[in-house]
Amino acid sequence: MRGAVLAAVVELLAREGLAGTTVAAVARSAGVHETSVYRRWKTRENLILDALTSQLDAALPIPDTGRVREDLLRFFTTLAQLLGTAQGQALLRLSVERDGTLDDRRLPYWSDRLTRAGAMVRRGVDRGELAPDTDPGLLIEAVSGPLFVRVLLSGAPLDEPLVAGLVDLALDGARPRTG
Amino acid sequence: MRGAVLAAVVELLAREGLAGTTVAAVARSAGVHETSVYRRWKTRENLILDALTSQLDAALPIPDTGRVREDLLRFFTTLAQLLGTAQGQALLRLSVERDGTLDDRRLPYWSDRLTRAGAMVRRGVDRGELAPDTDPGLLIEAVSGPLFVRVLLSGAPLDEPLVAGLVDLALDGARPRTG
Repeated sequence: MRGAVLAAVVELLAREGLAGTTVAAVARSAGVHETSVYRRWKTRENLILDALTSQLDAALPIPDTGRVREDLLRFFTTLAQLLGTAQGQALLRLSVERDGTLDDRRLPYWSDRLTRAGAMVRRGVDRGELAPDTDPGLLIEAVSGPLFVRVLLSGAPLDEPLVAGLVDLALDGARPRTG
Repeated sequence: MRGAVLAAVVELLAREGLAGTTVAAVARSAGVHETSVYRRWKTRENLILDALTSQLDAALPIPDTGRVREDLLRFFTTLAQLLGTAQGQALLRLSVERDGTLDDRRLPYWSDRLTRAGAMVRRGVDRGELAPDTDPGLLIEAVSGPLFVRVLLSGAPLDEPLVAGLVDLALDGARPRTG
């Protein structure tokens, strides 16, 4: 049942947006009773969050190509693409809404993802590609922050040059490099 | 009248939060008629946005010390402090709410501020402190993005080491520098 319900949520979100994704519509579309959905997920917000996080985790693997720039480019290009979809925007929107029912789960959600992504940076340090005192979390924040802000705040596009520009800035810095 | 009303908005926001900052409460506190407020600002959202943007612009000057690192540290330390106040968080929260009445003004608000802040980077390029192909907007986004995200998404603190870490990463990059 879980798989069918979560698939119905994702599909409804893409077609109807957040407002149209009610428990009643999800239950109808998945062919289950509304009471079963409430028994398992308690609230509509929990249901949507469960569906989106399951989908996003599967869609956002942590690459390990042996080169830090390539790993970061792949990871953040995928993240930018996901944030450009209706599901990604719905998850982000749900994450900033303050309704008091979600705080417990959504804060760990994003910080867990960023901590996991830090593995790419730590491998780069181990290989000597990055300075030994590199802060993995800070580097991940510096590249991901502008992507989130563009979706939430400015509405500016998330394109390929933006991701590459942010990765290269975090790796090389804006000061001229000699040699 | 404008000054008294806007001051009342800022003071109410700090004391009562967004929900408590109604047009009625503002008018009462400023000693003016509610209808005068509506005549001038049309909606509560316009009123709050006007008050917050006026206050923030005055509180967030663009420094010009002659050194790019010092300029960026001062600017983003001030921004982080402002985003830590009740007013700063209210402005940011208002900026991500999707109610259809504000889009016209809030998108230009943040992009105008970021464009203005790019002047610090352009001066650094002119002085030879930064590489000639540095993208001012991208650098500003890479430092400001994580500050916004911490307020909106993760709730993590905006402290001094964070700002310095982001500025130094954007200037020097994570790859080891030789020499």
